Amino acid sequence: MAAAIALSERGRGRTGDNPNVGCIIVKDGIIVGRGWTQPGGRPHAEAMALEQAGKATKGADIYCTMEPCAHESKRGPTCVDLVKEAAPARVIVATLDIDERTRRQGIDRLGESGISVSVGVLEQQAHRAMAGFFTRMEKGRPHVTLKLAMSLDGCIAMADGTSKWITGKRARAHAHLERARCDAILVGAGTVVADNPGLDVRLTGLEGRSPQPVVLGKAEVADHWTEISEPEAIAELDQTSWLLVEGGAATAASFLKADLVDRLLLYRAPIMIGGGLQAIGDIGLGSLDVAHGQWVRLDRRDLGQDMLELYERAA
Amino acid sequence: MAAAIALSERGRGRTGDNPNVGCIIVKDGIIVGRGWTQPGGRPHAEAMALEQAGKATKGADIYCTMEPCAHESKRGPTCVDLVKEAAPARVIVATLDIDERTRRQGIDRLGESGISVSVGVLEQQAHRAMAGFFTRMEKGRPHVTLKLAMSLDGCIAMADGTSKWITGKRARAHAHLERARCDAILVGAGTVVADNPGLDVRLTGLEGRSPQPVVLGKAEVADHWTEISEPEAIAELDQTSWLLVEGGAATAASFLKADLVDRLLLYRAPIMIGGGLQAIGDIGLGSLDVAHGQWVRLDRRDLGQDMLELYERAA
Repeated sequence: MAAAIALSERGRGRTGDNPNVGCIIVKDGIIVGRGWTQPGGRPHAEAMALEQAGKATKGADIYCTMEPCAHESKRGPTCVDLVKEAAPARVIVATLDIDERTRRQGIDRLGESGISVSVGVLEQQAHRAMAGFFTRMEKGRPHVTLKLAMSLDGCIAMADGTSKWITGKRARAHAHLERARCDAILVGAGTVVADNPGLDVRLTGLEGRSPQPVVLGKAEVADHWTEISEPEAIAELDQTSWLLVEGGAATAASFLKADLVDRLLLYRAPIMIGGGLQAIGDIGLGSLDVAHGQWVRLDRRDLGQDMLELYERAA
Repeated sequence: MAAAIALSERGRGRTGDNPNVGCIIVKDGIIVGRGWTQPGGRPHAEAMALEQAGKATKGADIYCTMEPCAHESKRGPTCVDLVKEAAPARVIVATLDIDERTRRQGIDRLGESGISVSVGVLEQQAHRAMAGFFTRMEKGRPHVTLKLAMSLDGCIAMADGTSKWITGKRARAHAHLERARCDAILVGAGTVVADNPGLDVRLTGLEGRSPQPVVLGKAEVADHWTEISEPEAIAELDQTSWLLVEGGAATAASFLKADLVDRLLLYRAPIMIGGGLQAIGDIGLGSLDVAHGQWVRLDRRDLGQDMLELYERAA
């Protein structure tokens, strides 16, 4: 299942409103099919894996990061029907769908046809890998990652605005990889005016994975940018399940204040700036007590001289 | 030698101008003597360990974190003489003394008397454990640790000055342990006015280890406090090899600006404050380029929900 979840990550930021599912088919201890939701949402992960495995699926084990879809669509047959037809011995599912048209029906229909079904394997990890989809379904808005590149003393730039470069090459490359895993990327109008950022993915081979640029507020931007007037308007961003917010301090604060941040992606360089620009503006914090217990660390690692820390919203 | 270095840490912040040395005597694989520089500087570590080991020292191995002293003092015989008299087989030394009255003479005199001498075992670690002494000898001032307790976004307090509490109990207990390992502790006059801090060690059993409180600038303080008017005046602090600077932002900045900080002790809580007080004021940084390469991370660990990061000045 961990391998299926890793596969699901390939679709992250490219499947629009569809969940980025991963699927692996194992026959006699050998992987005979691998699939992940394709750009735009089709084919589904299961369809891709079943196509690869062909007749070998008969009697095999199918690992799906989400239960196979059970609702009819004009875009093709349901995955449940495809799976039943292929007659595997078992289907192992990480998490149920949250879409009411499929929820539980996917696994129930497989079970009724005599296929052994298990649910809940690495559920939390799968949920995290498809958090864009779940956040969209549950909250009606994209999953939001706030990215900050800071000095040890929490500055995102010198007092005059200079921020090139706080972090090193490896950290910056990692940040571009995170961009490639998002549907859209947002900065404030102030950042557009100050830095005129490209917001594209500058990694060899991934140039085509640049997310949709979005600006919060009024600024002169190229035609392909999207403009929104307030953080809550991210709910209306089309085909956007994963959103990366890259600053500046006022924009970061407005998203935190609106309780719209699901993940903190902190890059920290081993430097002291002193009296520079603060990472986060006023978020209307009433007391230190309420600041506690909001964030849980998921990851911490070195990227060259710099550190990466990943936090997610506490459950 | 690692054990001898650990022993040396017991004297840290209590030996005044003397190095906090550690000494272990091993005979036939068994530790027969352990010593560390006693409060005020005497007895020396070697004298204490030799006293414990007694006649067992004959033919034994002596591990010293610094070469035994070779210069006469009114306070007692030299350690070199004591060691020679005890007739060990070998003396293993981590680092040479920096005091010209002893440097190389300690090991030379032992060698001339037929004792096998090795130098340079865990030298860097020993140097670090006795950094207070070395900094005093090399730079004519105490070794300075700057302590900061911050949120993820680099705030040391809310905008209104509230800082109780950013970090949790374990981090605060650790900070008190660091106080106990210093001769003196310094805050700015602003912090005295705002917080009236006790600066004592509030750990059961270590209350007697509270360092000398020092204030930078003019403030109403109790009689036992020391007042200094500028960071450079730490050079005149009596019997002080280890100094802990606890803030606030202006004081921290003044020490960084004067290039007087040897170690950064960062406690970070997993909270966002937003628009709070910055950790460090203006340090006159000319460009980001010069900020890089100044700090090397020595340690990183979790203290409950919080993190500790320890940096030292790059070589």
